[in-house]
Amino acid sequence: MTYKSPPVGNEISCVMHGISDKTLNNPKFLKETLLKALEKDNFTVLGESSHEFQPQGYTMLVLLSESHATIHTYPEYNSLVFHLYSCRSDDDGGNTFKFLKEKLKPKKVELIERPIKVTESNHQ
Amino acid sequence: MTYKSPPVGNEISCVMHGISDKTLNNPKFLKETLLKALEKDNFTVLGESSHEFQPQGYTMLVLLSESHATIHTYPEYNSLVFHLYSCRSDDDGGNTFKFLKEKLKPKKVELIERPIKVTESNHQ
Repeated sequence: MTYKSPPVGNEISCVMHGISDKTLNNPKFLKETLLKALEKDNFTVLGESSHEFQPQGYTMLVLLSESHATIHTYPEYNSLVFHLYSCRSDDDGGNTFKFLKEKLKPKKVELIERPIKVTESNHQ
Repeated sequence: MTYKSPPVGNEISCVMHGISDKTLNNPKFLKETLLKALEKDNFTVLGESSHEFQPQGYTMLVLLSESHATIHTYPEYNSLVFHLYSCRSDDDGGNTFKFLKEKLKPKKVELIERPIKVTESNHQ
């Protein structure tokens, strides 16, 4: 039998405001924290790509067996943008988000979470 | 003067339905098409990570100077999920999306586009 992906996944799109300069200017900490966060939902990391911008700013993309996660920092605004897309289920990624929030300590979070349906009705 | 990112970026989150098996099972074509699409908005590619799943399914993440773009395929449903986040401006990425749509020829597209504000009001 051919593997079929679950019909509905989950997308988390989030801006975290009020993160300290120390945290945002520490790519090593950000990378380790994102990877640890992804362990909280037992995601499987298959690839990574990251970049340290000059004079500041850090981007990291993580390719998951379950789709992807990304972070982008804006030290000039003390903010960070986090995206997670998991094709595994419609409520996936909550532990990852919670861990990130605990470690990055933002003062304010704007979060949008929504289901991503990869089937059409005739595939139900 | 320290570089400041524009205060508002753009996010495109899209499911394309009804794409042919031939297209979805051709990772080389998908990769080339995504990279060509990103040229249409003059995005700068800084890194890539991709994976061919067995027996099917392809994921590609592209790290951009302007943030990131990703695709995930679901050949079992003839669908593809495309995400683009650009920190460059609040209406960025339209040419990329248009080119992808022309080349992938989906029968139906579900698109959500929204601004991502990385500043708080006291940073205006």
